[in-house]
Amino acid sequence: MIILYDISCTRHNTAWSPSTWKTRYVLNYKGLSYRTEWVEFADIEALSIKHGFAPSGKRADGSPRYTLPAIYDESTGAKIADSSLIADYLEATYLDTPSLYPHNTRALQAAYEAAVLAHLDAIHQFTAPYLMTKKYFTPKTEEYYRKFREPAFGGKRLEDLLPFGAERVKQWERLKNDIGKIAAWYDKNDRKGSFLLGETPSWADFVAASFLVWLRVIWGEESEEWKDLETWHNGRWKKLFAAVKKYEAMA
Amino acid sequence: MIILYDISCTRHNTAWSPSTWKTRYVLNYKGLSYRTEWVEFADIEALSIKHGFAPSGKRADGSPRYTLPAIYDESTGAKIADSSLIADYLEATYLDTPSLYPHNTRALQAAYEAAVLAHLDAIHQFTAPYLMTKKYFTPKTEEYYRKFREPAFGGKRLEDLLPFGAERVKQWERLKNDIGKIAAWYDKNDRKGSFLLGETPSWADFVAASFLVWLRVIWGEESEEWKDLETWHNGRWKKLFAAVKKYEAMA
Repeated sequence: MIILYDISCTRHNTAWSPSTWKTRYVLNYKGLSYRTEWVEFADIEALSIKHGFAPSGKRADGSPRYTLPAIYDESTGAKIADSSLIADYLEATYLDTPSLYPHNTRALQAAYEAAVLAHLDAIHQFTAPYLMTKKYFTPKTEEYYRKFREPAFGGKRLEDLLPFGAERVKQWERLKNDIGKIAAWYDKNDRKGSFLLGETPSWADFVAASFLVWLRVIWGEESEEWKDLETWHNGRWKKLFAAVKKYEAMA
Repeated sequence: MIILYDISCTRHNTAWSPSTWKTRYVLNYKGLSYRTEWVEFADIEALSIKHGFAPSGKRADGSPRYTLPAIYDESTGAKIADSSLIADYLEATYLDTPSLYPHNTRALQAAYEAAVLAHLDAIHQFTAPYLMTKKYFTPKTEEYYRKFREPAFGGKRLEDLLPFGAERVKQWERLKNDIGKIAAWYDKNDRKGSFLLGETPSWADFVAASFLVWLRVIWGEESEEWKDLETWHNGRWKKLFAAVKKYEAMA
């Protein structure tokens, strides 16, 4: 059994972080047994230190930055944080499960992930504010999030990042164009199939889907925003979600 | 027979553009018969209009921007500009030649190319100045290049872009770090082989090699700069060049 540490919110059994979604997709795709332990955002550091998960990076002030997802694999004793390192570990350890990097595409997929991450500037203003206005966080986590995340947004209150009026129209178009770059890569594929490699899912699809499912969870599936996004790029994302839906189970 | 239009310089039979190198690598890799026609930089627009090559983009002022490489395929009548469109054309037309996108990786490779292009900010200051100081251009092309390229560098004379002293050391390190990001993707591959997909070359390798061969040609193979680069990233680029050398023939 593998334990997946995911970030909780005030909604029961709701995963709202793109990073932890990547790992959930991967565990489900590989058909591995796991259960989720929900951790408050404010408690990630303490949990990581207690269990010995390595920091995934550094804060601006140089102190270690602990993040989820992290997994504890009871059968091997491995304790790993960072969605990319977890994917590599699972790929190397469970050789009889479907591969995330078929045909030796690990290197190519690392570049792809960097390219996706380079197109996410416009997205945060349409996610972070809703976490606050829709009361996703407990008071403790809200305080922590404001302390460590708001400085990254120029010290603005997260609620105030949401554009409105003409600026909202402009930024919404920017978001659509950014995500359109990713859609344009998918469109280069002339073969059948909803995935980047055609008919076989790979890490790349879970990376793209994780950012989009993040939007779906935060906005709500019935929101005007989500319904608009489903029409973008010739229904590319609607098609991808239909294909990855079976890997969204919350174990 | 395919005619490859490449950009000439004052050196005989010397290709110095990364874009045209991509197409040369591809033609050689696919083993297609071709011959090169050399065109002065200043004459690219007139040639493109005369032969009916489409512009590959727009200039800042909105006017069409004609670029090389372009190919004329005598056997089909196709006339195509832009290295990526040429690659797609050759891939679709010559099905019995080695594939540039094995295992349906076309979409993944498009993202990879975008990721490589995003890491080339530091490179121009170590290429453009040498084109001038080493007198690569005829007077006519020099005049044209200054008129259309120098504005993109903030109106500076190209010679003046070359950093010196402490700034040179800093920018050289920046270049090494940028190229190191690409090396880090290669390193994700745990299998044998010099290529991004392991033992099989693909478009991705020719993209990376085209930027590096550009440096090699402009600096000179015996230059201090090139000898330094060959030691970078555990000899990654020396290894790649040993592997692509057979696709560098100038037909």
